[in-house]
Amino acid sequence: MADEFDIIRTYFAPLAKTPGALGLTDDAAIFATAPGFEHVVTTDAIVQGVHFLDDEAPENIAAKLVGSNLSDLAAMGATPVGFTLACAWPKATTEAFIKGFADGLKPWVEDYRFPLLGGDTVSTPGPLVFSLTAIGTVKAGTALTRGGAKPGDTVYVTGTIGDSALGLKAARGALANLSQTDRAFLADRYRVPKPRVQAGQGLVGQAHAAIDISDGLMQDLGHIAEVSGVSIEIDVDAVPLSPAATSALARDKSLITRVLGGGDDYELAFTADTMPLGLDVPITAIGQVRAGPASVQVTKNGTPLELESLGFRHFA
Amino acid sequence: MADEFDIIRTYFAPLAKTPGALGLTDDAAIFATAPGFEHVVTTDAIVQGVHFLDDEAPENIAAKLVGSNLSDLAAMGATPVGFTLACAWPKATTEAFIKGFADGLKPWVEDYRFPLLGGDTVSTPGPLVFSLTAIGTVKAGTALTRGGAKPGDTVYVTGTIGDSALGLKAARGALANLSQTDRAFLADRYRVPKPRVQAGQGLVGQAHAAIDISDGLMQDLGHIAEVSGVSIEIDVDAVPLSPAATSALARDKSLITRVLGGGDDYELAFTADTMPLGLDVPITAIGQVRAGPASVQVTKNGTPLELESLGFRHFA
Repeated sequence: MADEFDIIRTYFAPLAKTPGALGLTDDAAIFATAPGFEHVVTTDAIVQGVHFLDDEAPENIAAKLVGSNLSDLAAMGATPVGFTLACAWPKATTEAFIKGFADGLKPWVEDYRFPLLGGDTVSTPGPLVFSLTAIGTVKAGTALTRGGAKPGDTVYVTGTIGDSALGLKAARGALANLSQTDRAFLADRYRVPKPRVQAGQGLVGQAHAAIDISDGLMQDLGHIAEVSGVSIEIDVDAVPLSPAATSALARDKSLITRVLGGGDDYELAFTADTMPLGLDVPITAIGQVRAGPASVQVTKNGTPLELESLGFRHFA
Repeated sequence: MADEFDIIRTYFAPLAKTPGALGLTDDAAIFATAPGFEHVVTTDAIVQGVHFLDDEAPENIAAKLVGSNLSDLAAMGATPVGFTLACAWPKATTEAFIKGFADGLKPWVEDYRFPLLGGDTVSTPGPLVFSLTAIGTVKAGTALTRGGAKPGDTVYVTGTIGDSALGLKAARGALANLSQTDRAFLADRYRVPKPRVQAGQGLVGQAHAAIDISDGLMQDLGHIAEVSGVSIEIDVDAVPLSPAATSALARDKSLITRVLGGGDDYELAFTADTMPLGLDVPITAIGQVRAGPASVQVTKNGTPLELESLGFRHFA
């Protein structure tokens, strides 16, 4: 592997084209704040063999890492500012792999104006580990949190749910009775997050609570229920599905557990007392917030479904 | 190992006693900015078996990690705001180890008003990996960097140099002919960083360039020389030594290479055109900044020393 300084200069410095990154040559980077704004910060770590496959393409690893962190910023209603990145490379890491990883970061840096601010590269005798810290900014006092859901709110989601979990199956060769197009659509939804950054910003002042769907719809609504101290009820038939997911469920009804429980959708789930306006994505009402102990209940035709029978553990 | 959420609630949430951390329950944390200030951010990763010994006490690992990052903030002249932390735990990690690590963070959180803001805990099939992102704040436009050294400046360092490198030797059983007190002093300097946070803040508006000595005095001065585009000359006899280091060098002159090249001192090196005032630590002038190609030269009685003979590679 090439020298650490050469790696940084060649592959990472081009991602750091903001004056505050100081060309990645300093102890720390500098970022400004507009008057009346504050910052949000989130950190995620991913490990080879745990969060991505041993033979995953470096471009895909980069996309998942930066996309999922942008999704966390979106869930707070924040505008991206930049990120720091720590990479632990095994000795055998090739320069081609590092180049591929940096190439995978590049479109995100450009499309979301989300420059690399700094970081660290170290070697490890173990698997690849990446840790990304994303910084965003939001008007002071307006950040969306998990804690604001109120009884009487409606529960909404952006986009379609479950594509990523089904896409993981498709990428592994399952769902063979679906069309090639459907399988490719689902696999792409699994591989490349589409974080709802603009929608998140649009929800500021409209949503009472928000979260991005990374752990799975049920578990993430469970987080809102727990932090807000409310009971959430959703109608399974209201959960928006893509045509590909609809086809998959038509062939195998049991896949509903993957749709409700699978992670990595990177859609937003939120609660509000009126239908939010002006978003750049479709939104769908899927349920209600009620007073009561923190819980998530799924109903079909008004009748509660037994979550345990769907393979979920209890929330709260 | 206990459940991730239990670990966070039991050991890490008590380190996050600032409203913006949201009790570590949200997608991201929030931190404010005072009008007229901006932020600095730095990320460091450490790997078991690379940056700390396999059997290192978790309290010491925590101290080194958070202390070295506070030192990076100090080098920018920043006031600590808070940090995020990513931990990749091997499956065999005991809860006692995690508790020890959190206990090791605690005094830093309190003494430096440096709350945990958020982070991530994941499992790994490999060695322990920690990645810490430190955020600080500084009056807009005043952050110290490596890039401001000017010909005619004097080069200064805080405190004493080389204790940590000698302390690593002492901790490994070498330097047996030193007194027990001297060995204990040096080993403690190795184990527990004393980041010069207040001194760094005091250098704002006084120093032209600054860096913390983490890679070793020579290499870190090389970073200033390279980024500032200047030549630096230091007088080996001016480098301030602790009584313990003086004793060690009196017994073995060759240890000067460890003093000049060893890392982890976490003192500050800086350049200024007048002697800075009002610092809370001793400072010592050790050399000059000159026009010329980026380089670091060590002299003794005005005669250049051959760095190669001291075991250093060329800088710049």
